[in-house]
Amino acid sequence: MRQLQVQNVVIGAGTAGLAAYRAIESSGQSVLLIEGGQHGTTCARVGCMPSKLLIAAAEAVHGVTRWDPFGIRLHGQVQVDGAAVLARVRRERDSFVGFVLEGVDRIPACNRITGYARFIAPGQLQVDEHTRIEFEKAVIATGSAQLIPDFLQPFRDRVVVNDDIFEWTQLPQSVAVFGTGVIGLELGQALHRLGVKVHLFGRGGRIGPLTDPALKSEAERCFEAELPFVHDPQALALSSHANGVRIQWQSLPPGPARSNSTPARSTPTHSIEVEWVVAATGRHPNLDQLGLETLGLDMNRHGVPQFQRDTLQCGSHPVFIAGDANQEVPLLHEAADEGRIAGENAARYPHITPGLRRSPFSIAFCDPQITTVGSNWHDLSGQQIVTGKVSFADQGRSRVMLRHQGLLHVYAARQNGRLLGAEMIGPEAEHLGHLLAWAHQLQLTIPQMLELPFYHPVVEEGLRTALRDAASQLSQPTPAQVNTQRRSVQSV
Amino acid sequence: MRQLQVQNVVIGAGTAGLAAYRAIESSGQSVLLIEGGQHGTTCARVGCMPSKLLIAAAEAVHGVTRWDPFGIRLHGQVQVDGAAVLARVRRERDSFVGFVLEGVDRIPACNRITGYARFIAPGQLQVDEHTRIEFEKAVIATGSAQLIPDFLQPFRDRVVVNDDIFEWTQLPQSVAVFGTGVIGLELGQALHRLGVKVHLFGRGGRIGPLTDPALKSEAERCFEAELPFVHDPQALALSSHANGVRIQWQSLPPGPARSNSTPARSTPTHSIEVEWVVAATGRHPNLDQLGLETLGLDMNRHGVPQFQRDTLQCGSHPVFIAGDANQEVPLLHEAADEGRIAGENAARYPHITPGLRRSPFSIAFCDPQITTVGSNWHDLSGQQIVTGKVSFADQGRSRVMLRHQGLLHVYAARQNGRLLGAEMIGPEAEHLGHLLAWAHQLQLTIPQMLELPFYHPVVEEGLRTALRDAASQLSQPTPAQVNTQRRSVQSV
Repeated sequence: MRQLQVQNVVIGAGTAGLAAYRAIESSGQSVLLIEGGQHGTTCARVGCMPSKLLIAAAEAVHGVTRWDPFGIRLHGQVQVDGAAVLARVRRERDSFVGFVLEGVDRIPACNRITGYARFIAPGQLQVDEHTRIEFEKAVIATGSAQLIPDFLQPFRDRVVVNDDIFEWTQLPQSVAVFGTGVIGLELGQALHRLGVKVHLFGRGGRIGPLTDPALKSEAERCFEAELPFVHDPQALALSSHANGVRIQWQSLPPGPARSNSTPARSTPTHSIEVEWVVAATGRHPNLDQLGLETLGLDMNRHGVPQFQRDTLQCGSHPVFIAGDANQEVPLLHEAADEGRIAGENAARYPHITPGLRRSPFSIAFCDPQITTVGSNWHDLSGQQIVTGKVSFADQGRSRVMLRHQGLLHVYAARQNGRLLGAEMIGPEAEHLGHLLAWAHQLQLTIPQMLELPFYHPVVEEGLRTALRDAASQLSQPTPAQVNTQRRSVQSV
Repeated sequence: MRQLQVQNVVIGAGTAGLAAYRAIESSGQSVLLIEGGQHGTTCARVGCMPSKLLIAAAEAVHGVTRWDPFGIRLHGQVQVDGAAVLARVRRERDSFVGFVLEGVDRIPACNRITGYARFIAPGQLQVDEHTRIEFEKAVIATGSAQLIPDFLQPFRDRVVVNDDIFEWTQLPQSVAVFGTGVIGLELGQALHRLGVKVHLFGRGGRIGPLTDPALKSEAERCFEAELPFVHDPQALALSSHANGVRIQWQSLPPGPARSNSTPARSTPTHSIEVEWVVAATGRHPNLDQLGLETLGLDMNRHGVPQFQRDTLQCGSHPVFIAGDANQEVPLLHEAADEGRIAGENAARYPHITPGLRRSPFSIAFCDPQITTVGSNWHDLSGQQIVTGKVSFADQGRSRVMLRHQGLLHVYAARQNGRLLGAEMIGPEAEHLGHLLAWAHQLQLTIPQMLELPFYHPVVEEGLRTALRDAASQLSQPTPAQVNTQRRSVQSV
């Protein structure tokens, strides 16, 4: 077995690992980058880019639904050439992966090792059965993988995850998507718009990154209007069926208690047969095979090492964890920041410095798009806030574009008017999200935001309406102040 | 003739006039709002809203051009039902105008006068032949009208302006659009995409609000690829022809000197016949009939009173001028700000206070969209700046959406890295423009902007590329610094 000594190891050559490698390399220290699986980032191979490619084709064909009100007539029909759609997705995906691989190729071969790493003691790891490495400092950037829940395991040959979908060469007739997080919503809706018969199965009222009950209701309304959306299926039973899976369930009667009770009265049993089941119920960090137990780290209840968000250090160990592997936020821009910070801190260990973390920010590229910024409604429960609201149903430009649905709530601190966060489902949410995320990180107040330019006619004017609503509430006395005034009056 | 006395008059009930009226009214002073023409703002009646409605329909049908590369097939054909398209434009336009008129209706009848106002002496004006008003303070908010240039006057019955287009009930076969400012580009391209045979005629290299030569070239390239674009027609001759106009011209040979010379060699004469000529060569403030000469104001060479941008006051007179009438920026959001500031200052005269003016910001809603923010390239000529550049030809998300063309230049002060301005033609420019305009008004530096969140994969990452380009130039020594270093070396 080969024996190596190096100052730093980086395990995983995805977005976080590559950023960590570059940060260490530019410090002048020695570093080895270890990759066991396919090169190419989750983002480029199976995540952000291919899903946006599928969505772009789906949006193009969905545009036809607005033609009639615009005054545009289709004489004939529109055909989705599934093979061609998927061929473009793979071709462009390969091009994006190619950019990543070019970057990897520029790394000197002597700084790279192929194989799966596992720790065997503090300061020691082994790669497959061929190399033992003594190291001083390690960055764990092993990423994550889609989890296949237990109830789908017996049907594994008909279960696909996002990775598989982007290898399809034909669109299937029908799928059931389990999971209504960002991935489930994006893929489910895109496949539906491309002509696949899609059933969406959700649980516990989850819908993308939303937590505000009003926003979740609006999101449910939007998606239910477009495709079959099964909430909290009861008595769910799957069975093999010809070339697919039969799914049977009972629905809860609609109502607010939907997710908290068993069927109150007997409901009809639904039954569908689908070619494929898409598992989009969550991702799991790739940590199980790493031998982390040999390092003496403190672990959380999910089996992830405890770490500091702004240094990425695990306790006071010379070990750092970045990207999807730490299960904080599975987002490319965060993974890149985390990798860089982890790499810089590995290089300067034991002198650890907090790195710049950006304001929390998520987007689901479904339609209407969803975004959350800063603290969400759930984070803020119990705090003294005002909520500025706007509906896009009557928003001028949204109506012009026939995209007039959705809601935006902005949350501000009652005490000082500062923007604390926002949740939105509606048109151009990816762009309004950037304005909100910038304002949040700059710690602007609602009145300060209202001094900034809003053009006309733009969807951003909807944001302004919500800000004005918040501002008018901020200018009113708080219930506490009213009570104080009442007491003053009484005491006179 | 009726005689009235009032503290304030507001002439014109458009966006600026209504804002001025409301500001004065809420101060408690007496105010009369005088409107001679149709009620309803330029924006709602003939400007922003109807043009965006026409563009929305045009974009919907234009989407078909991206179908084939996406893998979507059209079996049959797409028909633009011109009557239906225009009916929706008018119906929605009427609805937006309706909102404005509801606002006007809420103004007490005793505070409104119908008729054309003209000043007859300082502190005195007359409305048509029916009312004389003595006033202390006046806000002029008479708006602007499309100018029909002299060479089109003989063909007035076949010349239309934007106002007329939105009254059409059928789309014509063919038009020639004279003028390639924002209105010419927006209307010309939208009509072309709706199936009208359009020729665009430009002069002097003008293209929307752009001033940066590289951006102007890119814009020309984009528009020339889509429709006939005639630059600086030579020996232009118009003549009546059946139910339209014949237009003949000679082209300049292509080259950099295009706009500065007469034809160097004989070029073929082009000839087209069009149903309508669209005049989009510029707007003119409605000041000619106001009797301004009786007020003793200082006028500029365009016949517009001199005024202060942040107070809207004309010299030290109790006269204020707001909105399109002052010919500064014909934009709704600016007109609303100006009207409010003018009204507040009229009310508090002689105690004048500067109002908040937002960062300069313009958008052309053509495709690709155009935006300029802050100081443009022309404003900055001769200053010590760095220019951060990005092409959208290879920008990830733009490519995903098949919208990968265009350029963005950001201009920053070499001395302190502050964002001074930007020009862009490219995808989602209306949204990137907002980020840039907010950053500009907040006086952020390029490094500060790079600390803010950029999601993935978004077009905003193209902005980040331009900012990184600027940042890398800012971190290099200036030519002056290099010279100093060279001198130091030589002196050793």
